[in-house]
Amino acid sequence: MDTREDCLAADACDPLAPCRERFSLPEGVIYLDGNSLGPLPRATPALLNRAVKEEWGRDLIGSWNKHGWISLPETLGDRLGALIGAGPRQVIVTDSTSVNLYKLLHAALTLRPQRRIVLSEEGNFPTDLYIAQGLENAELRLSSRAGLPAAIDESIAVVMLTQVDYRTGALWDMKSITKAAHDAGALILWDLSHSAGALPVDLDGCDVDFAVGCGYKYLNGGPGAPAFLYIAKRLQESVRTPLSGWMGHAAPFDFGTAYAPAPGIRRMLCGTPSVLALRALEAGLASFAGIDMAAIRRKSLALSDLFMTLAEQRLPGDAFEIVTPREERRRGSQVSIRHGGAYAFMQALIEDGVIGDFRSPDLMRFGFAPLYTRFVDVWDAVERMAAIAEDERWRQKRYHRRQAVT
Amino acid sequence: MDTREDCLAADACDPLAPCRERFSLPEGVIYLDGNSLGPLPRATPALLNRAVKEEWGRDLIGSWNKHGWISLPETLGDRLGALIGAGPRQVIVTDSTSVNLYKLLHAALTLRPQRRIVLSEEGNFPTDLYIAQGLENAELRLSSRAGLPAAIDESIAVVMLTQVDYRTGALWDMKSITKAAHDAGALILWDLSHSAGALPVDLDGCDVDFAVGCGYKYLNGGPGAPAFLYIAKRLQESVRTPLSGWMGHAAPFDFGTAYAPAPGIRRMLCGTPSVLALRALEAGLASFAGIDMAAIRRKSLALSDLFMTLAEQRLPGDAFEIVTPREERRRGSQVSIRHGGAYAFMQALIEDGVIGDFRSPDLMRFGFAPLYTRFVDVWDAVERMAAIAEDERWRQKRYHRRQAVT
Repeated sequence: MDTREDCLAADACDPLAPCRERFSLPEGVIYLDGNSLGPLPRATPALLNRAVKEEWGRDLIGSWNKHGWISLPETLGDRLGALIGAGPRQVIVTDSTSVNLYKLLHAALTLRPQRRIVLSEEGNFPTDLYIAQGLENAELRLSSRAGLPAAIDESIAVVMLTQVDYRTGALWDMKSITKAAHDAGALILWDLSHSAGALPVDLDGCDVDFAVGCGYKYLNGGPGAPAFLYIAKRLQESVRTPLSGWMGHAAPFDFGTAYAPAPGIRRMLCGTPSVLALRALEAGLASFAGIDMAAIRRKSLALSDLFMTLAEQRLPGDAFEIVTPREERRRGSQVSIRHGGAYAFMQALIEDGVIGDFRSPDLMRFGFAPLYTRFVDVWDAVERMAAIAEDERWRQKRYHRRQAVT
Repeated sequence: MDTREDCLAADACDPLAPCRERFSLPEGVIYLDGNSLGPLPRATPALLNRAVKEEWGRDLIGSWNKHGWISLPETLGDRLGALIGAGPRQVIVTDSTSVNLYKLLHAALTLRPQRRIVLSEEGNFPTDLYIAQGLENAELRLSSRAGLPAAIDESIAVVMLTQVDYRTGALWDMKSITKAAHDAGALILWDLSHSAGALPVDLDGCDVDFAVGCGYKYLNGGPGAPAFLYIAKRLQESVRTPLSGWMGHAAPFDFGTAYAPAPGIRRMLCGTPSVLALRALEAGLASFAGIDMAAIRRKSLALSDLFMTLAEQRLPGDAFEIVTPREERRRGSQVSIRHGGAYAFMQALIEDGVIGDFRSPDLMRFGFAPLYTRFVDVWDAVERMAAIAEDERWRQKRYHRRQAVT
């Protein structure tokens, strides 16, 4: 696509273009940060309002049964599972990604009692690493990305990786890494926070053991939406959660004294979940209704490819380095650009109505969520980036920021 | 109060009567189950709608700073703290009660490394007991209620009690039990789920170490609202959480590899919290604006005393046994009645528009939340109970239910 008109033409024949109407996007803003916080689906306010006024306000405590509150973690888990290649009753919506990481790392270490090493990569998302550091009887071993496959040996209890790197957007080959872990007798735990809803994931097909992910990025569940976890059916009955709360009990309303885990995935619940947060996530998941993840992937790659091509054409290559792999099978749905003045540049870009984000020390991230991002948005975003790059303003701001910090 | 008119007169001069307008209660329903799920505050829909449409929908990712999302756990924690006798920066709103119990029991055991026993009482709320059972290196010891003070000895790491018993409504003397724990070198952990917002609590004044509680009962934060935890200032810097997630990191947005706890209470955060759930809790807490907890306690005792007096007068004493202590200093804000056909009786009562609840095997619970419960509600509730007791209908239903179960 060599002109803005080409982009408009691509949008005109894009089969996903009508999905943009499912979202309430602010006027005049190009939102390229759905990899951090998905925008508001149009359906959310009404669904939430009904949950507040009719379910909570009118039907009160009876709603746990009447409106199915009690089974929401499972019903939403199954809907979410359909987006990540998980058959029914293997995904449950609960707690935060961090809490779910704790549960599953603990479970993995219990299933491999002769081993204590959690293997991860240096650039993994901090909370994954922090949670592993908080586990007693576990030792976190970090490898470089390149060295990771070779670091999987028979000392490893569980390999914990984020499928799409939050900084670079690089994508792991889930199938081969999972196989390498299993070949070494280790378990695998995938963090799908940056892949669920962004690209096809095939948990069952890749024979994955465990997965977690958050609901507020590509799944559009709202700020801090409930997270999810996956446990392969074959492992569920041998998994115990250290967070043995009452909602995961076999018979929570018997109010017995002794803990007994519920059958299957439900045992991974802990306390009482926020019903309002679950309803908002329900609306977020509904934004994927009728959409094939393969179509999302096709458009995602086309958008990000266009962005990289235009960025290379329009931005000075000595100052702007694309750190995201160009090869399609090696990247997710975001593109990251390294730049010495990344913070100030992103601030200037946001002021110009293009919202991406900054990750310390020198990265700008741009997410391309195919449900609401247009090809013309990509064109316009690069246009504005080129204008700022030519301008001195952002350098000034950077100067002022440094002054303010010291 | 001997007549319905007396009750109406009491309502007319009740200083808390205007607070009822702060809630959206369904027509024709007497809601005596606020001890399980608080009703919808009138302010909630608008506050939530603003959070959804303006904060999330319009301002998107920028709201973490612009609308103070990032500090909501602390700002709401301080507001909640004011209701339970906790000075600033000792309460934080986060996760569920169950998850918070896990964090604090773990912390207590770490602070008492030579001891491993968690002492609790047989009738404690199940999730408290289940969480203690899930902790490695801990041993849960249960005592009868009567025997508990004597069971606190130097083998105990932490005494874990719910201040108001969820079944009987019995109230522990927080000050004396806390002192007994400290005298034995043990720590104390109070679960305030059935007391926060229901009666004055004086955590600081009683020299309490740890507390947890939920936001969806007397605090009216919505179904499954975020929970809270309290750590006395003097202990905060020596407490580590096993759930060392990124929101509790000293510098979460530096994205460093090594976990380092934030100073103070903020270290007890784990993952990203649901902002929508926090906003709903904010509205729930606002329903206490300008209200003195002592006034709440006075009315609570008057309501529950009236209920017990009328129940004794109007219900056959051989079939209905009040299990809640009559003595004011020994009860919270609910009254429980034992009855052989409690389940069917409560079903019949709910059909008649009086909502309480049932706890297996034979208890009916009635909560008296002074912000929205009127004296005439108590009169009318007992009136309907008396009518059902005289009627055979509920016995029939009970018969049918048993038939259905077998």
